Amino acid sequence: MRIEILATGDEILTGKTVNTNYSYIARRLEEVGLTTHWGTVVGDDRMSLLEAFKLASERTDAVIVNGGLGPTIDDLSQDVAAEAAGTQLVLNEKWFARIQDFYTRRGRVMPPNNKKQAMLPDGAEFIDNPIGTACGFAITIGGTRFFFTPGVPKEMRRMIDEQIIPRLLEMSGRKVVTRLKRFHSFGIGESRADQMLSGIEDLAPNGGVKLGFQAHYPQLETKLAAQGATETELDAMLAPVETAIRERLGNHIIAEDDASLESVVINTLLENHFTLATAEMFTGGGVAARFVPKDGAADPFLRGIVSRELAQLCGAVGLGADAAASGCSAEIASATAASLRKLSQSTHALSVLIDLDDGADRIEFGGSINIAIADHDGVVTRHARMLGGRDWIRLGATDLAIDCLRRHLLGLPVDERIDFEKH
Amino acid sequence: MRIEILATGDEILTGKTVNTNYSYIARRLEEVGLTTHWGTVVGDDRMSLLEAFKLASERTDAVIVNGGLGPTIDDLSQDVAAEAAGTQLVLNEKWFARIQDFYTRRGRVMPPNNKKQAMLPDGAEFIDNPIGTACGFAITIGGTRFFFTPGVPKEMRRMIDEQIIPRLLEMSGRKVVTRLKRFHSFGIGESRADQMLSGIEDLAPNGGVKLGFQAHYPQLETKLAAQGATETELDAMLAPVETAIRERLGNHIIAEDDASLESVVINTLLENHFTLATAEMFTGGGVAARFVPKDGAADPFLRGIVSRELAQLCGAVGLGADAAASGCSAEIASATAASLRKLSQSTHALSVLIDLDDGADRIEFGGSINIAIADHDGVVTRHARMLGGRDWIRLGATDLAIDCLRRHLLGLPVDERIDFEKH
Repeated sequence: MRIEILATGDEILTGKTVNTNYSYIARRLEEVGLTTHWGTVVGDDRMSLLEAFKLASERTDAVIVNGGLGPTIDDLSQDVAAEAAGTQLVLNEKWFARIQDFYTRRGRVMPPNNKKQAMLPDGAEFIDNPIGTACGFAITIGGTRFFFTPGVPKEMRRMIDEQIIPRLLEMSGRKVVTRLKRFHSFGIGESRADQMLSGIEDLAPNGGVKLGFQAHYPQLETKLAAQGATETELDAMLAPVETAIRERLGNHIIAEDDASLESVVINTLLENHFTLATAEMFTGGGVAARFVPKDGAADPFLRGIVSRELAQLCGAVGLGADAAASGCSAEIASATAASLRKLSQSTHALSVLIDLDDGADRIEFGGSINIAIADHDGVVTRHARMLGGRDWIRLGATDLAIDCLRRHLLGLPVDERIDFEKH
Repeated sequence: MRIEILATGDEILTGKTVNTNYSYIARRLEEVGLTTHWGTVVGDDRMSLLEAFKLASERTDAVIVNGGLGPTIDDLSQDVAAEAAGTQLVLNEKWFARIQDFYTRRGRVMPPNNKKQAMLPDGAEFIDNPIGTACGFAITIGGTRFFFTPGVPKEMRRMIDEQIIPRLLEMSGRKVVTRLKRFHSFGIGESRADQMLSGIEDLAPNGGVKLGFQAHYPQLETKLAAQGATETELDAMLAPVETAIRERLGNHIIAEDDASLESVVINTLLENHFTLATAEMFTGGGVAARFVPKDGAADPFLRGIVSRELAQLCGAVGLGADAAASGCSAEIASATAASLRKLSQSTHALSVLIDLDDGADRIEFGGSINIAIADHDGVVTRHARMLGGRDWIRLGATDLAIDCLRRHLLGLPVDERIDFEKH
């Protein structure tokens, strides 16, 4: 089945807004085994929209139109859809009542032009939007099914996941259920992960498991997109593949699905009634930033120290400034972690010291990283050297430090070699 | 003149890579007074590319093709361009020598498949790529001029700016020079800035100045795209508009062109031989992160303290823990700034305390912000209340704090009201 994604709106056409809705929709289609055949971007322009609808209907079986459902005069999607389908706009009374209710519940009066959002092409299939005033709809134009979705990312995402993908899967004739299993790893590059997981799709008894990667340096996301007749079949297909991935990527797997490196660390700290203080050099607060709690959740993070001057950092963790005299080393990392732990009265302290090479930034630019974790048992350390330029080292060192803490908390070796370090 | 941007490649089509190249190109076209008429995305697929080239040539005068110039078998742009133009690929000896030289200078041997990157359609105009092995080229297909550009963002951007835009401007028949003047402001929303700058384009003596905005919350970028016959004419046209913008946006302008809020603050600190320490609560290290110096430049930042617990923050700046007993206030902000300045021996200390509302995150969620700046003359403070949810407050408070420091350093009032605060 051929699918087109048609993004509308001057903000997208002129590049003012980056078209992340397109990539979200295309990725979600891939993840359930559907494929995008074509992508189009047109502005808020009647002639362009009509032409784009015509071309899309000629080359594809289904079109996801995004944007143009707002209340203002430049939002043309319903209007042009009706014209292209050779029909009229009619008021959807049910949705109109919902919009009015939406405003009433917020203690506001509906502006008159919002009525436009309840005008749908005659005969269109209504598609619910539980969190906004722009409903979706579907209509057939030239034999091709067009699905209209709002441009607001949160509303679009929910509609794609809950409403559009099930309809497309049904259209595709495959009576299937789908699942996306995700593993987040740190320390393995995409091409090596690809080698390490070679042949893994064949472990699924009935096939139907597709392996994919998404690199977010320094992390890698490994995705298993599975399709089957029932949830039970999916369980059976995925189980051996998941087991093999956990074996092959081993301790490099930092989290699965919606969990993250930092959520795993935070939860482990909380479960054990641990608290954390951090001291970091050259990561610009990147370590502390990762421990910002979501939505007022319990927070084990007590204190973060950010500096690029070792003497300042030593002073801030309660060591004398002369402690810095010998420069960055495993010893000084240990001392800062131990002293910070004492000063902040945390159960754990993490210290990340980076000694950057001299000279101009370049791809061969390197840095030496000394990490120390202090707890009630003493101090563990990790040393690594990384190349790739300042920003690359900063990002790599931040994740390396948090991953060391994860490993230490979970009783895993902290000094397992990663792909990004050089000797 | 109608222009199409045609993005090629499976990574873009499937959403694995967000199409930021598209938005860069479209924005740059807008900035020089050209407009994008249509956007297309197709994969690494011969039939789709041929069809896309045909459609683009039918509806536009110029097409910017992005991607597909790499050395691997799935990079099809040259090949399909030759087919669409009814010609053959021929070796560009000059470029082939450049590629070989590129590898030699890096002490490597050119892989054989890189020769493919020097095969251009017969009769194509060569377009230089000074920083990569994928050269660009231009060729006419069906009466429309096609410009082929590499997918690597850095190479694409340079080619667009230096090579493609001048050619498009020449094609458009306007013998013009262009300039983009940018103002960065903090504290004014886009719609209010639009009102405040109403009619400003008319101040340019010969017209030709176009006003635009790009919001990056909490900052706003105000852009003047100017076109004229000569640089002198541009100077004359822009001068009154720039003056009026500086008058109307006043102290809210934080930087111009490539400067930024933080670069202005860092440079002002350095020029005066000042140093800085920061203490922040609930901004997750966001203030410290902004003072990461570029590429080993001189660095006035001595120490940053990050915490979400007032007692910890007080402890870390050298106050007794009982100082935190009375909660966040202007007084405690002042005390932490003064104490941190003393402890870190910095000339300036900035303290940002946030007292977030209780309860679940929501759009009406608010926070009270107390900012203090300590220097040799004493302490100045700023209080603000903001709404909009946790992340919104975090971002707003971070810029508000750094902007207060800028204002204080430049002798401007620190308590000018901003659009994002509520009373």
